[in-house]
Amino acid sequence: MAAEQDPEGRAAARPLLTDLYQATMALGYWRAGRAQDQAEFELFFRQCPFGGAFALAAGLRDCVRFLRAFRLRDADVQFLASALPPDTDPAFFEHLRALDCSGVTVRALPEGSLAFPGVPLLQVSGPLLVVQLLETPLLCLVSYASLIATNAARLRLIAGPDKRLLEMGLRRAQGPDGGLTASTYSYLGGFDASSNVLAGQLRGVPVAGTLAHSFVTSFSGSEVPPDPMLAPAAGQGSQVDLAASVEMWLERVCGHLGLGVQEPHRGERAAFVAYALAFPRAFQGLLDTYSVRRSGLPNFLAVALALQELGYQAVGVRLDSGDLLQQAREIRGVFRTAAAQFGVPWLQSVPIAVSNNIDEEELARLAQKGSEVNVIGIGTSVVTCPRQPSLGCVYKLVSVGGQPRMKLTEDPEKQTLPGSKAAFRLLGSDDVLQLAEEPPPQAGQELRVWPRGARESRTVRPAHVEPLLRLWVQQGQLCEPLPSLAESRAFAQQSLHRLSPAHRRLEQPALYQVALSEKLQALVDRLSARGAL
Amino acid sequence: MAAEQDPEGRAAARPLLTDLYQATMALGYWRAGRAQDQAEFELFFRQCPFGGAFALAAGLRDCVRFLRAFRLRDADVQFLASALPPDTDPAFFEHLRALDCSGVTVRALPEGSLAFPGVPLLQVSGPLLVVQLLETPLLCLVSYASLIATNAARLRLIAGPDKRLLEMGLRRAQGPDGGLTASTYSYLGGFDASSNVLAGQLRGVPVAGTLAHSFVTSFSGSEVPPDPMLAPAAGQGSQVDLAASVEMWLERVCGHLGLGVQEPHRGERAAFVAYALAFPRAFQGLLDTYSVRRSGLPNFLAVALALQELGYQAVGVRLDSGDLLQQAREIRGVFRTAAAQFGVPWLQSVPIAVSNNIDEEELARLAQKGSEVNVIGIGTSVVTCPRQPSLGCVYKLVSVGGQPRMKLTEDPEKQTLPGSKAAFRLLGSDDVLQLAEEPPPQAGQELRVWPRGARESRTVRPAHVEPLLRLWVQQGQLCEPLPSLAESRAFAQQSLHRLSPAHRRLEQPALYQVALSEKLQALVDRLSARGAL
Repeated sequence: MAAEQDPEGRAAARPLLTDLYQATMALGYWRAGRAQDQAEFELFFRQCPFGGAFALAAGLRDCVRFLRAFRLRDADVQFLASALPPDTDPAFFEHLRALDCSGVTVRALPEGSLAFPGVPLLQVSGPLLVVQLLETPLLCLVSYASLIATNAARLRLIAGPDKRLLEMGLRRAQGPDGGLTASTYSYLGGFDASSNVLAGQLRGVPVAGTLAHSFVTSFSGSEVPPDPMLAPAAGQGSQVDLAASVEMWLERVCGHLGLGVQEPHRGERAAFVAYALAFPRAFQGLLDTYSVRRSGLPNFLAVALALQELGYQAVGVRLDSGDLLQQAREIRGVFRTAAAQFGVPWLQSVPIAVSNNIDEEELARLAQKGSEVNVIGIGTSVVTCPRQPSLGCVYKLVSVGGQPRMKLTEDPEKQTLPGSKAAFRLLGSDDVLQLAEEPPPQAGQELRVWPRGARESRTVRPAHVEPLLRLWVQQGQLCEPLPSLAESRAFAQQSLHRLSPAHRRLEQPALYQVALSEKLQALVDRLSARGAL
Repeated sequence: MAAEQDPEGRAAARPLLTDLYQATMALGYWRAGRAQDQAEFELFFRQCPFGGAFALAAGLRDCVRFLRAFRLRDADVQFLASALPPDTDPAFFEHLRALDCSGVTVRALPEGSLAFPGVPLLQVSGPLLVVQLLETPLLCLVSYASLIATNAARLRLIAGPDKRLLEMGLRRAQGPDGGLTASTYSYLGGFDASSNVLAGQLRGVPVAGTLAHSFVTSFSGSEVPPDPMLAPAAGQGSQVDLAASVEMWLERVCGHLGLGVQEPHRGERAAFVAYALAFPRAFQGLLDTYSVRRSGLPNFLAVALALQELGYQAVGVRLDSGDLLQQAREIRGVFRTAAAQFGVPWLQSVPIAVSNNIDEEELARLAQKGSEVNVIGIGTSVVTCPRQPSLGCVYKLVSVGGQPRMKLTEDPEKQTLPGSKAAFRLLGSDDVLQLAEEPPPQAGQELRVWPRGARESRTVRPAHVEPLLRLWVQQGQLCEPLPSLAESRAFAQQSLHRLSPAHRRLEQPALYQVALSEKLQALVDRLSARGAL
């Protein structure tokens, strides 16, 4: 696994990857002399995705990379000028040219944290004009990353800890970067590896892959065969003609399986031999190009046994169609009898990998007790998050110049929570949001809180209090190194294990409560009553 | 609207944006001496998305850009070496270093064409190793582009030709490039503009946007007011204090609406004044931050009437919560009475824009006869394609060295159609796939075809025959300029209008038939019977 790096040093997002209204509002703020007013925004979601009771926070690393690289280039400013009124004061564009994030401070949930509705994933403060401009790119970087990390975590919970989960959805993603984001954050959420080479190169995600049907169908068996000589694994001894050895083994395998020696497809066998010559230590057979039972399986066994004679051990088989669970059972049965028949014990435990539109339901089936499936490749269902393809994060102004701000709207659920806030996790009860100036809750001390949406307050006495938001960027400077992707992945699994089973349950879970402090609740009530005046 | 350009000249995808198995297969082909074998792949989908009977082909421009830039850099080759067996022959990596698409030929449906199941969107031929490597990036570039273009086309059909449709889903996309792809291809599919500034800068998509709730909530009304002086639109005459004029108009508006002059939120009004000072020729009011009826609407009218005195005309209002259709009716009613009361006729037709999780059903409601909604902003539903978030395109080998290739598999619907093919649209009946060497069908002449999935052939006499696949890239060289995005958008609308209403219908449409020529059907039958030998 490569170290995490970006050889191009480029942030995924660029400053103009934003909604035009951010630029028009920037001009409005500037014209009103308010560009430098200190403002704070919160980025949060209103509802956990997929009908679950939790989400994983992700995307902070991309946000930090974006903020640190944030500069409008000349071409960017010129484009904005073309989209704004022609008589706009040129001094505004000078202001844009000088803009950076040196005045921006970010508090956030660490990558891989559990996140709940209304609790900020990010708090972004700084000059009003610039923190407004950041809205769209930050939403774009956090929303999907958190959604897919959560989706991957659910799939990991369904699969259990022992199945190897591969993400292979690049071709089903929303274009190139959708694929890169998907591969990165499905790994964070609990997958083991990705097919996406770029995610390996740029993000250090472990990559995996062997062969596709096209490799198999590209061989008819009548090609000029490749140099078929292969040296033994140990390096000692003379080379052997692998192709000839495979033909010899095929007779024995077909005899054992009760098949005619003409039945297995010779093009498929030629493809397996070619692959084995290139990857003698990592031979995998893709079994279902023609017929698993009559062709793929005997061809695989013949090649695996010929390699075994030279001291090589095949690493697996893959199925991509049909009833995967049932076929895996049958294949395991054949492996067991062949292991005994040919005196090759490792053959009975050759990993069986499967793929083909696997969703949560099919995954549960493949992960059931007694399943002989070892490796599961998931594409569309992890990348597109079909149960809910968007997390719906929002980025809302909560204070300007130290004064709380609140939106009311015509939909009560779209109201915002005013004021600069702190957030705490109370072990065994809730997350609590309170105003930043309030003293933190103390373990063992009684606390009166207002669960969101409830009409009554309640009293809690937390056994443990954990502050949730960490300071990552202060006035544009990184305050502490961000954890590596692999560290965040481990943290996500720890966080999930600490969550109670009732909240972790994927279907009809117990709702996790987020409560407001008395002071915050009073502020909400006061501003609501006054029409947010 | 800016010219279409990419200031960084960079392709969205890079060669390593691929599945690892493409690289392992490349080594397999190379080891077998087959890297230069001439091969052809077809890129197609198996089922139209969203339960419809058509799709729009899109993404070709990105594919061509990708192919022309395709080179593995040293860092790329080094990364691949780290992921392949350590004893891999160094000559293989030299082969990769020299690789480009100078041997690759691409035939494709023009951007914006109607596409149907099994008909190739792309035919890619060239040296086996390189055309195999292209699989994942081409799928990634075509699948989502075609999906969202189709989704946008559906939404346009629902909205009808007169509503203005804005795509504003960047924050709901799969990361930065998902957003850029979405904005580009929803425009191709029939939207009028996007909020995404980068899509304007890089792709020439018209951009639109005004203000968000945060702009409104950022003003309390107690701020030091901006310089409130505004010159008349015509440039003649002395400047006027807009803020003072708005306060005067507010009294008249509140009198007309029967509201107390203290009811409209003064922070909201300050925000509207600030915005109007920055955009006197493009003032839009966002009405629902506090209360549409008691605050947003009277504040908007006061500012619009004050601007009107100076010769400026407000360009619209926007609603983002509540019952959009009903509120639009009420607002239109108020505009009509205010237009009469204050003698300002244009006020009755101020465009009303709406947004807020609008999906196909809500769009149909907003587009119904008598609706007073003029502009509709759609984010999540266009970008995430929630009815079907992936098109499921595949890229299958159809011939090597001039010999047809076919995959059978354990699922009959995953079988491929062998052979290098041509495709024709027969006016009034079907699309027909035939072998490349067959003479094209002739208008007015009888033709025997086999509808896919049918057991019987049928005879057709097409009134008109249209070849579908155009040669765009021959041996790495672009053969003709690609149409601009706007041209492709117009072509998509023409294509849709030519489609019969029975196929164009969005719910339970008549299936469009794709048929095979007799020779192609015979080849399929022969290869299937022989187990694709």
